[in-house]
Amino acid sequence: MKKEFEKEKLLFKKSKDFSQWYTDVILKSGLADYAPVKGCMVIRPYGYAIWENIQKILDEQIKKAGVKNVYFPIFIPEKLLKKEKTHVKGFSPELAVVTIGGGKELKEKLVLRPTSETIIYEMFAKWIKSWRDLPILINQWCNVVRWEKRTYLFLRTTEFLWQEGHTIHETHEQAIGEATRALNNYVKLYRDFFAIDGIWGKKSESEKFPGAADTYAYEMLMPDGKALQGCTAHDLGQNFSKVFNIKFLGRDGKEKIPWQTSWGLSSRSIGALIMVHGDDNGLIIPPRLAPIQIIIIPIFQGKRIDKSLEKKSEELKKILKDFRIETDLRKEYSVGWKFNDWELKGVPLRIEIGPKEIKEKKITLVRRDTGERSLAPFSSLPSRVKKVLDLIQKNLFLKSRQYLKENTTEVFEYDHFKDIMKTKKGFLKAFWCENPKCEAKIKEETKTTNRSLPLDAPDYNPPATLPAKGRAPEEGKCIYCGKKARRRWIFAQAY
Amino acid sequence: MKKEFEKEKLLFKKSKDFSQWYTDVILKSGLADYAPVKGCMVIRPYGYAIWENIQKILDEQIKKAGVKNVYFPIFIPEKLLKKEKTHVKGFSPELAVVTIGGGKELKEKLVLRPTSETIIYEMFAKWIKSWRDLPILINQWCNVVRWEKRTYLFLRTTEFLWQEGHTIHETHEQAIGEATRALNNYVKLYRDFFAIDGIWGKKSESEKFPGAADTYAYEMLMPDGKALQGCTAHDLGQNFSKVFNIKFLGRDGKEKIPWQTSWGLSSRSIGALIMVHGDDNGLIIPPRLAPIQIIIIPIFQGKRIDKSLEKKSEELKKILKDFRIETDLRKEYSVGWKFNDWELKGVPLRIEIGPKEIKEKKITLVRRDTGERSLAPFSSLPSRVKKVLDLIQKNLFLKSRQYLKENTTEVFEYDHFKDIMKTKKGFLKAFWCENPKCEAKIKEETKTTNRSLPLDAPDYNPPATLPAKGRAPEEGKCIYCGKKARRRWIFAQAY
Repeated sequence: MKKEFEKEKLLFKKSKDFSQWYTDVILKSGLADYAPVKGCMVIRPYGYAIWENIQKILDEQIKKAGVKNVYFPIFIPEKLLKKEKTHVKGFSPELAVVTIGGGKELKEKLVLRPTSETIIYEMFAKWIKSWRDLPILINQWCNVVRWEKRTYLFLRTTEFLWQEGHTIHETHEQAIGEATRALNNYVKLYRDFFAIDGIWGKKSESEKFPGAADTYAYEMLMPDGKALQGCTAHDLGQNFSKVFNIKFLGRDGKEKIPWQTSWGLSSRSIGALIMVHGDDNGLIIPPRLAPIQIIIIPIFQGKRIDKSLEKKSEELKKILKDFRIETDLRKEYSVGWKFNDWELKGVPLRIEIGPKEIKEKKITLVRRDTGERSLAPFSSLPSRVKKVLDLIQKNLFLKSRQYLKENTTEVFEYDHFKDIMKTKKGFLKAFWCENPKCEAKIKEETKTTNRSLPLDAPDYNPPATLPAKGRAPEEGKCIYCGKKARRRWIFAQAY
Repeated sequence: MKKEFEKEKLLFKKSKDFSQWYTDVILKSGLADYAPVKGCMVIRPYGYAIWENIQKILDEQIKKAGVKNVYFPIFIPEKLLKKEKTHVKGFSPELAVVTIGGGKELKEKLVLRPTSETIIYEMFAKWIKSWRDLPILINQWCNVVRWEKRTYLFLRTTEFLWQEGHTIHETHEQAIGEATRALNNYVKLYRDFFAIDGIWGKKSESEKFPGAADTYAYEMLMPDGKALQGCTAHDLGQNFSKVFNIKFLGRDGKEKIPWQTSWGLSSRSIGALIMVHGDDNGLIIPPRLAPIQIIIIPIFQGKRIDKSLEKKSEELKKILKDFRIETDLRKEYSVGWKFNDWELKGVPLRIEIGPKEIKEKKITLVRRDTGERSLAPFSSLPSRVKKVLDLIQKNLFLKSRQYLKENTTEVFEYDHFKDIMKTKKGFLKAFWCENPKCEAKIKEETKTTNRSLPLDAPDYNPPATLPAKGRAPEEGKCIYCGKKARRRWIFAQAY
């Protein structure tokens, strides 16, 4: 039995070989596998169940905001994509193109959607005539395709899953309200469910979405000190409306141009979840997203589980039926093997029950995050279990918050900036003169990109619908050119 | 106000121009629209909400059967698709092919999945080694692409949405059990939720899924007398396992070949829903699938809704909050306009409330299916409403059952067969010698295809897991060649 587990266990330690651990833990825990197509992956049941939990929470938020789900074709005619010039320029290096259909060469090539602004807004132009037709608030859950040369499971695959929201409004204020509503909900999702703290802010001109007026994002820090962008919400202004000739007759009888937003969160988010919380023994999945929150393992001596123990385990499962719970009654594996297996899978809470526990009317709870063991009397269930799961959720978030704090450094000298980027990395907070040339130079010399202007930056007044207020200006010098700079931006190397 | 409605109302009557009515009702009720890509459609919020209701019910059935959701890539390398010869032959006329990725010509062309057997079974070969790895029971909700020349909204589009289940088992018996489990659930879904009666049976050798051992399907009859296949469940035997070299070490230590199934239901099912139940005034959506089950319309004189009436409508909505319910408080439309609009959208139950109703503490219920009006005292809510919705659901199913009965004809002479196919069409039950040549000739001469061998056919012994038993053989003559025939098959023209 011992030998059998050897095959399954992790070959790499997170603490030593982070990148290899990441791939190893995904393959061995059964989250996903490489597909027999270059650049693609297969999301296996255990991984997909996490995505379903994410979908459920986010879809509820989306519906509550009055946004309705729809479905648009995956095919975008080339001429549509080319309408918005910045947009097509931003996406053209990563397009997959269908040139043959039904055995014949197509007259017009069809691009597989890298995102759906263009095809959706072509329809908006058809549907919108009067202010009575506004707002339109829609969202779709779908696959998107962006050609990638090198695959990194979850984080970078040619095809991935996401939701993309698209809304169109009478006024700019309404559009900003909607973009920030989406952002607020994403941040809530990351903090309260993923248990990952991060920095939210506005993207610089060079880093914003191709075609957007403003892009907002949530940036998280991975254990190797690199940043991962968790989502984006775009205030599209009137850019696309103008290009797609979307107009409406206003309440005053005059012709007007509407204001748009788009916002998305993808299955790449699962990559962050794996990286941030896992340890040398495998995954640690926060209880609120875990496909299995509790695993019951009957403890027995010798080869066989005794019938009464099996029965007690099933009874326990019934008592705790409001949780996502499983019992592991497999006879072909030892108790030790099972412990390792469920630790690898990152189930947040293990319940051990053996003859001793039955006699004393207690069970043993073992936390995946801390390894902490405690006894719980039968009579304290299910509330005790609920409390422990809440503690785990909270602990994971606080650890993430602590890590973020410890790895966000204020820097004032470019040498210091470069030094940190060569060593521990992390987020750097630095004055920047807001000249794209300095940003480009920094990227070229240190592989570090501008992540965002954080909401709490001095001399920045974020939309009132975001939980931050404009602060007094500061005086500083651009980290690169030394010229006068007013605001401190967040820099990091990124996935 | 009257004029405004004119623009929206149906131009065609179901009773006169069925095919034009179908397109018209879909576009005007807001279910869907033509996309700016040939052969594709946009599913709008009202249409997508029906699909979400279908998904919810079916996904619950699937999960209850122990099947887990997954996601496989949309790209299938050509060489994989070509492995199973019948399979690739069946699908090759309808393939869409990606030849360019990231700006470069691809070395190996990628087909967009028309169905996912090949890519999934390639992975099964990798995952399965021992009987301990079996069964694998998976399903995915995704888009599929089959190139179509002529679009028919919902029924025939180049891209459509579906679920495809794929399972693999130690024994043939288990595989048959799973294929028929899926079929049973589909039929339950169609009868209990879609309120559409149909005929279930086994496909003939020529009509079965390319690569399957046996294909089971549910065939429904549309108002124009043509058949629509509602779903399929395939017993794949060992065909794909052999081709994909999937083997496992059995419990007896010997190498074995596993048994497979696949089964699917698509967004095309919404086409059946529209066709079967709608009438000259628009859609009629069965309550159990309706995005909006009840619409409350306040009845007022003159131009303005009175505040107390508005308040009462909202109160009513709260009392009936367990239903999918909306109030129409729009001020820019007349009561008559609203009646027409919600009838067009097929909301099964309308509640009218006016000053008279408030005074008498009663509301008026109006059934969409029969137009029947009744008064319900406030005190009888919500149970009264529940009863009426159940009656509507039941009535729609019984009407469908009646129609099926009236349009299923037993025929014994080919002239009679041809006559019916020239006039009212419908299902024909006819002896067939089971020689594919006769089947092909019938198709050539009458455009009529063999739909299936119904479960209750004489001399047919369906799997024990289906609700039918083998019956005594009959003696007959093949409807085409006149030779001896044992069983009566179902023929129809089909969508």
